[in-house]
Amino acid sequence: MSQKPSLPKGTRDFGPIQMYRREYLFSTIKSVFKKYGFMPLETPAMENLNVLTGKYGDEGDQLLFKVLNSGDFLNKTTSEDYEAGSKSITSKISEKGLKYDLTVPFARYVAMNRNDVAFPFKRYQIQPVWRADRPQKGRYREFYQCDADIVGTDSLICEAELLAIVEEVFEKLNFEDYQVSLSSRKILEGIAEACGASDEFSRFCTILDKLDKIGLDKVKEELSGIGVSDKGLTTLTTILAIAGNNDQVLKRLSDQLGNTQVGLEGIRETQETLDHLSNLGKAAKKVKVDLTLARGLSYYTGMIYEVKPTSISMGTITAGGRYDNLTGVFGLDGVSGVGVSFGIDRIYDTLNELDLFPTDNTQATKILLTNFDEVAQAHALTILGKLREKNIPSEIYPESAKLKKQMTYADKKSIPYVLMIGSREIETGIYSLKNMNSGDQKEVSIDQLLDELS
Amino acid sequence: MSQKPSLPKGTRDFGPIQMYRREYLFSTIKSVFKKYGFMPLETPAMENLNVLTGKYGDEGDQLLFKVLNSGDFLNKTTSEDYEAGSKSITSKISEKGLKYDLTVPFARYVAMNRNDVAFPFKRYQIQPVWRADRPQKGRYREFYQCDADIVGTDSLICEAELLAIVEEVFEKLNFEDYQVSLSSRKILEGIAEACGASDEFSRFCTILDKLDKIGLDKVKEELSGIGVSDKGLTTLTTILAIAGNNDQVLKRLSDQLGNTQVGLEGIRETQETLDHLSNLGKAAKKVKVDLTLARGLSYYTGMIYEVKPTSISMGTITAGGRYDNLTGVFGLDGVSGVGVSFGIDRIYDTLNELDLFPTDNTQATKILLTNFDEVAQAHALTILGKLREKNIPSEIYPESAKLKKQMTYADKKSIPYVLMIGSREIETGIYSLKNMNSGDQKEVSIDQLLDELS
Repeated sequence: MSQKPSLPKGTRDFGPIQMYRREYLFSTIKSVFKKYGFMPLETPAMENLNVLTGKYGDEGDQLLFKVLNSGDFLNKTTSEDYEAGSKSITSKISEKGLKYDLTVPFARYVAMNRNDVAFPFKRYQIQPVWRADRPQKGRYREFYQCDADIVGTDSLICEAELLAIVEEVFEKLNFEDYQVSLSSRKILEGIAEACGASDEFSRFCTILDKLDKIGLDKVKEELSGIGVSDKGLTTLTTILAIAGNNDQVLKRLSDQLGNTQVGLEGIRETQETLDHLSNLGKAAKKVKVDLTLARGLSYYTGMIYEVKPTSISMGTITAGGRYDNLTGVFGLDGVSGVGVSFGIDRIYDTLNELDLFPTDNTQATKILLTNFDEVAQAHALTILGKLREKNIPSEIYPESAKLKKQMTYADKKSIPYVLMIGSREIETGIYSLKNMNSGDQKEVSIDQLLDELS
Repeated sequence: MSQKPSLPKGTRDFGPIQMYRREYLFSTIKSVFKKYGFMPLETPAMENLNVLTGKYGDEGDQLLFKVLNSGDFLNKTTSEDYEAGSKSITSKISEKGLKYDLTVPFARYVAMNRNDVAFPFKRYQIQPVWRADRPQKGRYREFYQCDADIVGTDSLICEAELLAIVEEVFEKLNFEDYQVSLSSRKILEGIAEACGASDEFSRFCTILDKLDKIGLDKVKEELSGIGVSDKGLTTLTTILAIAGNNDQVLKRLSDQLGNTQVGLEGIRETQETLDHLSNLGKAAKKVKVDLTLARGLSYYTGMIYEVKPTSISMGTITAGGRYDNLTGVFGLDGVSGVGVSFGIDRIYDTLNELDLFPTDNTQATKILLTNFDEVAQAHALTILGKLREKNIPSEIYPESAKLKKQMTYADKKSIPYVLMIGSREIETGIYSLKNMNSGDQKEVSIDQLLDELS
């Protein structure tokens, strides 16, 4: 009985072309992480559910993929459990879940290995995560995260290094049309305080975050609705009108936030981050202080930043920030951390849309040797051995076949050269080398061939 | 409330040192796969259960990790389903499972993409798989498989190429103490036929496979028990006494199997595989025809081989063979394939035990810059920028701290150099460079430093 196979909703196969491009992305990012002293970590796909639940809010808990206990999983349940429904029986039939992000498993790792880890601990991690979200364009149930974090220090050098990493990664990817928005939760808190909205900080930020979409008048109307005074709204209007380069913006903002301790602290930290970045030799031309950036405020406690393409509409492609007390929930207090997360799927789509993936695939086969009969085949194998000795990715068509079939194969695999091997070639030691891109054909000896392709 | 976190049974974190070594293994193997024209593939962790079940026997089905449907998973069940027990309710509350190996998802991929794939299709795949086995030393519930397969041709060049890959991989890993056992299911069938045991082929092989453990007399006793005649046992004794180099063994075997069509076919295929390997320029000194090799006979249909270390006891570290009709179950008939699977965990343990991992870690940080105060820190950041511009993996201790603490950090991370930066150094532009391995210290300018570490 044969079946028509399919993929689970929201999951993907990555065939050769996608894999080459993804490996190009991953290896580029990894090489920068390593250059900055980050070390690799991998954690299991499954975590115990008590590690995962309660870390991502109620909605997140709903989106965890839970793994059924093996064996007779019902043996710890009663028919009352069954009657009580799915929610209540879950914990009795499932102890493990698929990881939802890389941060919580990282925190678990740090807490479990606190005595062996060299603090400050700089680690990167590139692995898939799983979310039972409704699949839609650009949103998958299995997708890779690509994170680097530094934990165990509150030095702002770390923030600067992560911004430098962002700059180097995109530079290596030849991608220029992006902007980094930089701010601090503390600046937002200062603005809220200056507007008299400290008690409503969270709602204040939610409304402010809609500025781009609904405009200033609507924002003021909604803020008024949560009790912000006219004076507060005037202050906000003044703050939002601040313009200039980063130094000027910070200077002008500090004139407005002069009476808020936390606001001045945020300004100082932002300035210090920019100073470190400059000392690191980064012009940071893409980095723009953005006073309305209100990202991830349920977990970020200090600097926050996000990266968006400027020439296409793609949303945030990379983001990060500082979070305090990462490992507190696992019994290790006082560990502050800061991280960056590269959004691989969106970066992939961005490079694809802008045609920035390298066209010459250095990872793929460079030359195909033809195979017309047993004698030619044996001869071709000896040439193949020589090509591979020179580390030239090469292959032979594994069975004798018509030229057309072998050419189609080379074409489908985008192999740039084909070496023709027939009885005349074997006799003379001179072979026809066909360039599949130009269609040109030329005569070469083995030595010339090895030289040409090395 | 803090909790003491733990890992699910049979799963592992891979910290930096293990990751460096695993990456060394993976990248070595990948580089050889690519050189031989294999292309990368990745498939999702989860597959629909109808893709997975029935492919690994009853025992395999038991070992699949099943993922609970999201949302109200009980809503398709009745209390009768509950009363009927775990086995019967599973299919109603779980539609997806974690993949058990890479072969079935690969077959699913080939069947689904039959029109786009360039046949013969050479793919490699390096991903984790999951089995709800009882965890024990060296057996995990999550582990990586590392496979290369060629499907869509029955050319024995493929077998030879896989054996060449094995030789190159272990050569690159500087691992020499191993042996490749090579045989064919057809040779075993020929031997069974010559012994008059064709009707009991499977039991015949199971008994023969115990030769090493129980000795020839016991084997003959057991074979006699399943009805093998005295004449058959005499033939077997003669066959098992065959010795010599591969050519001699095959020649002598063919004298014994002269009347069995399938046996001669097996001998011819083995000889042809060895001839191709020799044409490819491989001396194949480690390859030994082994007439009692009875591996994976429930799925292998042609050539079979396995690799074992000779100087330590580790079991099979790499294996493979030819299987027919890989994709038949998914509606695509007539696709023959042959593969190799590198056992990463055992190869890791082998290299570890034999001390074969490279000692100089080219992936890790090469130099740490000290951090004693704000002025020195700002100065150090400018040097750091220059080091990274030269692609030298480098870092600064992110906060000012006592020298001892910074040295301990460098030591824990095995960073080989530390650059001391104090007020005297800043003034003169001459810095103390400490070699952490030898303890030596010398004075260098920035240019000398960049030269030395590039």
